[in-house]
Amino acid sequence: MKAEIIAVGTELLLGQIANTNAQYLSQQLAEIGVNVYFHTVVGDNPDRLVQAIRQAETRADLLIFTGGLGPTQDDLTKEIVAKHLGKQLTTDEYAWKKIQEYFERTGRKMTPNNKKQADVIEGGKVLPNEHGMAPGIFLQNDSKYYMLLPGPPHEMKPMFRIYGREAILDQLEQQERIESRVLRFFNIGESQIAHELSDLIESQSNPTVAPLAGAGEVTIRITARHEQEVMAVSMLDDIEKRILERVGEYFYGYDDTSLMAELLKLLEERQLTIAAAESLTGGLFQSEMTSVVGVSTMLLGGIVCYSNKAKIKLCNVKPETIEKHGAVSEQCAAELASNVREALGADIGISFTGVAGPDSLEGHPAGTVWIGIAFKDQPAKALLAKMAGTRNGNRKRSVKMGCYHLLKELQKSRKID
Amino acid sequence: MKAEIIAVGTELLLGQIANTNAQYLSQQLAEIGVNVYFHTVVGDNPDRLVQAIRQAETRADLLIFTGGLGPTQDDLTKEIVAKHLGKQLTTDEYAWKKIQEYFERTGRKMTPNNKKQADVIEGGKVLPNEHGMAPGIFLQNDSKYYMLLPGPPHEMKPMFRIYGREAILDQLEQQERIESRVLRFFNIGESQIAHELSDLIESQSNPTVAPLAGAGEVTIRITARHEQEVMAVSMLDDIEKRILERVGEYFYGYDDTSLMAELLKLLEERQLTIAAAESLTGGLFQSEMTSVVGVSTMLLGGIVCYSNKAKIKLCNVKPETIEKHGAVSEQCAAELASNVREALGADIGISFTGVAGPDSLEGHPAGTVWIGIAFKDQPAKALLAKMAGTRNGNRKRSVKMGCYHLLKELQKSRKID
Repeated sequence: MKAEIIAVGTELLLGQIANTNAQYLSQQLAEIGVNVYFHTVVGDNPDRLVQAIRQAETRADLLIFTGGLGPTQDDLTKEIVAKHLGKQLTTDEYAWKKIQEYFERTGRKMTPNNKKQADVIEGGKVLPNEHGMAPGIFLQNDSKYYMLLPGPPHEMKPMFRIYGREAILDQLEQQERIESRVLRFFNIGESQIAHELSDLIESQSNPTVAPLAGAGEVTIRITARHEQEVMAVSMLDDIEKRILERVGEYFYGYDDTSLMAELLKLLEERQLTIAAAESLTGGLFQSEMTSVVGVSTMLLGGIVCYSNKAKIKLCNVKPETIEKHGAVSEQCAAELASNVREALGADIGISFTGVAGPDSLEGHPAGTVWIGIAFKDQPAKALLAKMAGTRNGNRKRSVKMGCYHLLKELQKSRKID
Repeated sequence: MKAEIIAVGTELLLGQIANTNAQYLSQQLAEIGVNVYFHTVVGDNPDRLVQAIRQAETRADLLIFTGGLGPTQDDLTKEIVAKHLGKQLTTDEYAWKKIQEYFERTGRKMTPNNKKQADVIEGGKVLPNEHGMAPGIFLQNDSKYYMLLPGPPHEMKPMFRIYGREAILDQLEQQERIESRVLRFFNIGESQIAHELSDLIESQSNPTVAPLAGAGEVTIRITARHEQEVMAVSMLDDIEKRILERVGEYFYGYDDTSLMAELLKLLEERQLTIAAAESLTGGLFQSEMTSVVGVSTMLLGGIVCYSNKAKIKLCNVKPETIEKHGAVSEQCAAELASNVREALGADIGISFTGVAGPDSLEGHPAGTVWIGIAFKDQPAKALLAKMAGTRNGNRKRSVKMGCYHLLKELQKSRKID
C-alpha cells in the first residue's frame, strides 16, 4: 500500500506552523509497512485542493488529509472530498451531541457553523475525536482509500493512533512487520561511513541501510521487513553486526540517545562525580549536563575560565604554564582538569581549552581544542581535537568530543576492571 | 510570482525529521510578496523527483528545492534537475577549494564522493555556503526559476537569507516596496500585548501589526507597503511610535537581536567586565555569552556552583548563609554575585540560584529563581522571578531574565550619569 499525506491549511504555506503532522503520520505508517512517497501541503483553496487530490490519486492508494475539519468558512476538506467523490455529507449524531454538550457545559454561545463540524461523508467510517469536536473519516471509493484527520496535532495524533491505524491495518492484506533501529556514530564523517558501507547500502533492499548526517553526528537507520516480527528483528541484528564489524569503533548508542545521555548513564552506574573547567566552551558542557533531571548526584560544578585571569585565579593554573605553553596547550588542559577535580573532590575532572574562532589564537587556527581528563590517583591526560566549524559549531562539537573521549576512557577502564 | 517548495529526502517521508525548511522559506517568501501555493516532499528517488518537478512547473514560476546536495549516493537533486533541464554539471572551484581545505585542516580522509559536493549546474548563479560544503544554485530556464538549497537548516537558512532572497528580489518586477521590522518585548505576555494594541492590530491593513509569541518573548512584526521605500519606512516609524507609547517599557530591541546581544552591546559601549556564578542555570548564561564573537573583553568567566559544595568551596558563600536562608534565597544570590565579582576583579557580578524543577527544593516550588546583581562599590541586590515552565524552559528564562534585569539596571544608571 502506498500513501500520500495531504496537509490542508494556508497557515502552513505562510510558514506560521511546520507540518509536524506529516512527520508523525510518516513514522506511524512506516511502522505498519505503508510506504509514503509524497507529502503535499495545499492552502484553503477549493480548486487547488481538488488538483492535489487528483494528483495523489494517480500515485497513491491511500490519501490521508490533515486539517480543514473546523467550523470556519475556510475549513473545506470534508466538503471538497465529498464533492470530488460524488458523496453527500450527513450529520454524525454522536459528534453533534458532543458539540451541543460542550456549549451547554461552558455556557458559550453556539453559532450555526458549529453544526458543520459534526458532518461526515456518507458511507465512511467515523473516527471519534476524543480531544476535540470534529470527527475523522475513513472511506473506500473504488480502489482508493481516503482518511480525513483534524489539523491540531493534539487531536490528530490520538485519533490516528487509536482509530486510524487500526482502520488501515484492517485493509492490509499482507501483515508484513517492519522493524527499524537507529545506530549512532561519532568522530567519523558521513562520506567515510558511506564509503565503508557502500556495498551494504547499495545492494540491500531488505534490510535497508540508510546513513544520515546531522548535528555533527552520523546515524544509520536499518529497517527490515518480514511476516514474523522475530525474523525482522533477527535480520536487524545480523546487519547491525556486519556494520559494527567495519565501523564499530565510532558507534556509541541506539535510537534517541546522545553522547551526554550515554556518559551520564555510565557515571550513574558507577557512582562517579565530575567537575569541569571550561574555557572555549564557556559553560556549555555543564549547562548541557544540568539540563538533565537528577544530575545533582554526579555534577558538582566547576569553573568557566574564559579569561586567563580566571584560569589562574579560579582554577590555580600556574602562570608559568600559560607563559611557556599558552592557554591552548596540552599542559594547560591537563592542569585545568586536575585542579578542578581536586578543588571539588570529584572522581573525574574534565577541561576544555582551545580556539572557538573565527580568529586564531596563540598561533593556533580556529578549531584547535585540547580536552583534559583527570581521574583520581592518576596523572591527567589531554587529547587534541581539530574542528572546522563555525565558532558555535566548534564549541558544541568540543562538548560532544569531551563526552565521547570520557565515555571511551570509562569503557576502557571497565574492561580493565 | 508563485513559488513551490520541494523538499527532497527519504528521511522526511520516514518521519525522521519535520520539514521545518519549508516553514522557514514560506515565512521568508511571504515577507517579500512571493505566494507559495504548494509544498511537496519527495524521497531520494529519481523518477519521483522528476515527476514532482514536472508537476511544480505546471503551477509555479519558482521551484525551490531543499536537500539532496550532499556527498552520498542518495543525494541527487543537482543531478536530476540538471538532467531535466538538459544542462551539465561543472565544478565550482571556490567550493572545491573549501572542501579540500576542510579535509587538510581536520586531517580527515577525503573520499571520491566529496568532490561531487562542489558541483553546480552550468549557467546557474552560485549561492555560497558559509556553514557547510555544498553551494546552492539559482538559475533561470525559459520562464521558470530554480533554486537549489542544502537540506541542513543551519546551512540553508543563512544561505537563503543572505544570497537566495536577493537573487529572487532581483527578478521581481514589482513596483511596491515591502518594508518590515520586528519589535521585541520581554516580561509581558502575548495576550496582554494583543489586548493593549487590539485596535491597531484589527483596524490596520497597511501597515499591518502582527504579534507573535515564542521562546518566552513576544515580538510584533510591522509591515508597510508603498511605491517609495522612504514612505514605507516612515509609515513604519509612525506605527512603531504608537506601539511604544503603550507598551514601550517592555521593549528591548529590533529584528534579530536578543536580550544577550543588547546586554553585550551595552557592556562594550561602557567598557565593563562581568563575572557570573550559576547554580540552576549550570553555565548557560556564560555559555550563551561566549557564543558571541569578541566577548573576551567583557566576560572574565565564573563559577558553575550547581552543588552547595561548589557554592562554598569555589565561591566562598558562608555555610551559615545556606544553613540559615537556604541556597534558594536572596542572601545566597547576593553573596554569589558579590563574591564572584570580587574573585575576578570584574565591574559586575551576576548570579542565578533557584529551582529549575521538576521537583521543588528547600520548600520552594519549581520556577522560583533569585538573580543577584553586584556592581563595584555598591551593595549587591537580588531580584525574585517566578516561572512556570519545564526544567529547561525555566533555566533558559532565568538567563533571559538576568539579561533583562541587568540591562534595565544599566540603562537606569546611564540616565543618572
